[in-house]
Amino acid sequence: MALVPLVEYDDAPPEVRAVYDDIRATRRTDYVNNFWKVLANDPATLRRTWAQTKEVMAAGALDPLVKELIYLAVSVTNNCEYCIHTHHAAAKGKGMTPAMFAEMMAVTALANENNRLANGYRMDVDERYRA
Amino acid sequence: MALVPLVEYDDAPPEVRAVYDDIRATRRTDYVNNFWKVLANDPATLRRTWAQTKEVMAAGALDPLVKELIYLAVSVTNNCEYCIHTHHAAAKGKGMTPAMFAEMMAVTALANENNRLANGYRMDVDERYRA
Amino acid sequence: MALVPLVEYDDAPPEVRAVYDDIRATRRTDYVNNFWKVLANDPATLRRTWAQTKEVMAAGALDPLVKELIYLAVSVTNNCEYCIHTHHAAAKGKGMTPAMFAEMMAVTALANENNRLANGYRMDVDERYRA
Amino acid sequence: MALVPLVEYDDAPPEVRAVYDDIRATRRTDYVNNFWKVLANDPATLRRTWAQTKEVMAAGALDPLVKELIYLAVSVTNNCEYCIHTHHAAAKGKGMTPAMFAEMMAVTALANENNRLANGYRMDVDERYRA
Amino acid sequence: MALVPLVEYDDAPPEVRAVYDDIRATRRTDYVNNFWKVLANDPATLRRTWAQTKEVMAAGALDPLVKELIYLAVSVTNNCEYCIHTHHAAAKGKGMTPAMFAEMMAVTALANENNRLANGYRMDVDERYRA
Amino acid sequence: MALVPLVEYDDAPPEVRAVYDDIRATRRTDYVNNFWKVLANDPATLRRTWAQTKEVMAAGALDPLVKELIYLAVSVTNNCEYCIHTHHAAAKGKGMTPAMFAEMMAVTALANENNRLANGYRMDVDERYRA
Repeated sequence: MALVPLVEYDDAPPEVRAVYDDIRATRRTDYVNNFWKVLANDPATLRRTWAQTKEVMAAGALDPLVKELIYLAVSVTNNCEYCIHTHHAAAKGKGMTPAMFAEMMAVTALANENNRLANGYRMDVDERYRA
Repeated sequence: MALVPLVEYDDAPPEVRAVYDDIRATRRTDYVNNFWKVLANDPATLRRTWAQTKEVMAAGALDPLVKELIYLAVSVTNNCEYCIHTHHAAAKGKGMTPAMFAEMMAVTALANENNRLANGYRMDVDERYRA
Repeated sequence: MALVPLVEYDDAPPEVRAVYDDIRATRRTDYVNNFWKVLANDPATLRRTWAQTKEVMAAGALDPLVKELIYLAVSVTNNCEYCIHTHHAAAKGKGMTPAMFAEMMAVTALANENNRLANGYRMDVDERYRA
Repeated sequence: MALVPLVEYDDAPPEVRAVYDDIRATRRTDYVNNFWKVLANDPATLRRTWAQTKEVMAAGALDPLVKELIYLAVSVTNNCEYCIHTHHAAAKGKGMTPAMFAEMMAVTALANENNRLANGYRMDVDERYRA
Repeated sequence: MALVPLVEYDDAPPEVRAVYDDIRATRRTDYVNNFWKVLANDPATLRRTWAQTKEVMAAGALDPLVKELIYLAVSVTNNCEYCIHTHHAAAKGKGMTPAMFAEMMAVTALANENNRLANGYRMDVDERYRA
Repeated sequence: MALVPLVEYDDAPPEVRAVYDDIRATRRTDYVNNFWKVLANDPATLRRTWAQTKEVMAAGALDPLVKELIYLAVSVTNNCEYCIHTHHAAAKGKGMTPAMFAEMMAVTALANENNRLANGYRMDVDERYRA
């Protein structure tokens, strides 16, 4: 029930094909998933979103698996069904074990709980933790 | 402007003191932060929340620093001021560098953005990512 | 899988019919969508919600299409599947082009990202922007 | 209480100065607000966030004031204090009147309410609104 | 730091005074709190919001204290500082004890946690719970 | 489309069976719903989540039906489909009438609306409501 059609490679303008080609090369797969095919209806959003995602999710001070776990934690908090499924797969591809997934879920659930205890009781930030 | 008073050690009933003692021993510090002192108004919530937090945040398949980063990502997504300050400090204590913090923030922000692109365009989950 | 049955016109009490009639007249259509048919299980909620929606979404200092775009941006942020589909249709009926929809989505996604950067880094509001 | 220091122009590396210069030129002001000065601690995030913000908020199928209203609606929904203050100022600079602000607020509040009625009662999307 | 000025009774137009008078009569107090004084900048929003609030929060199938507890639970979930403080006071005025407040907080925190476990693991709704 | 398999009683390790047995005894039913069967993939999360849920939702200063209504209000605010269905059923089992459900929904929707009015206009908390 996507609100816009999927743009397939063969029907795509050159600027969209260029992004699809880079997705394939970066991920070493022929598969381009529906997220990008929908964004392709607006080539500027496709280009911008892919460039940002590629840069942010690359290895850096944090390794790619840790980044995927953080991404999943946010997606679970926001209840993004699409993102949970695709990044669960991506995280598994980068080495996430069932135990890691379960622990990420437990931390995410805990933080959602404790966030409300803190926001609700409204205690001041301790002097020593103020930056 | 906390909604309830802080419960200090000297005024606390034995069940609260026992939790405070365990917080101090586990964290190897004399300091008990305001979160626990506020929860202590309801000793059952204090006991339960500490037990869960201690268990979930301990080393396991994920190391404690990765857990702190996930906790921070959720707290930033939910805008919990208290949690952001205290877990920022906790993460630094476990080895988070400024570069790691910046990358956690970038991934968190990216996921919040992409979550809305996926939820808004409402593309179907690709067949291959369905569990 | 609605939690309550849909209330159809022929089975509705007079106070519900009056609201349905006003929806039809205001929107110049015979169609009453499921949102109202579900709310009709509680006639007070139906009356109140329709009256407020009719008043708030009417032309004023902002034109109805701009209001629909704002409504969509909130619905995407909150991930309300029903609201996204119905207000996407409503916005198209008021002149929203595919390019407008794509730009609304891009602004909504951007704001969700930047909101977390600001909430997470916790910079003070600049003196000049304080009201 | 920002978690990282503000990076001032005189202390900034060339890549940060280049972004500050572009912010000033684009906005025709000497002022660079705290959001960017905090992001400058991670030059890659600064560059990426500014480039995206500049592109997305520019005139297109929607005019810049409408984009500011959408940005505000999301920031209010997410409770981003910093973003509300700065984009309230930005919207006023682009012609937002008090009446427009009040109507944006009314639509935002209404959508937040109706989103929960729809998500809670869980009515199916009407056949005709499915894309 | 409100974005608009507070409208005081002596400076208010008749339609605003009428709402203030009704707030005072309904609540049996001379005090009108800042929420209404800010909404009064847009008399239509003031009138609509007060009428709805008065109707929804009145005794019905649920008693007013239960309604205040529900209102608080939502405000804590959404982190509305203003609403938490004012409805905490309102609930106390209607008989909320510290133990009731603590239990409302515990249920709210628990639901926020379990909501993420369910949304994250994405189990199907059991056949018997489908309406 | 759960991300992990359901753990059935006959295939479950002793620690999981013990929790299932306690769920059945506490609820006086043979039925164990999918939430627990999914959590059982991580026995520590299952044990912890059940213990907390059992303790928090038990009768105390608030009766179990009021707790279910609060739980539902949070689940509606967060859009947890699974939780809405199961706790709607649980609340009915504890005496929730259609009128009570409709009023809980109305309060939840109202609070979500008013939360944004307060967060958006950013009025200060009245001196008298500061704790």
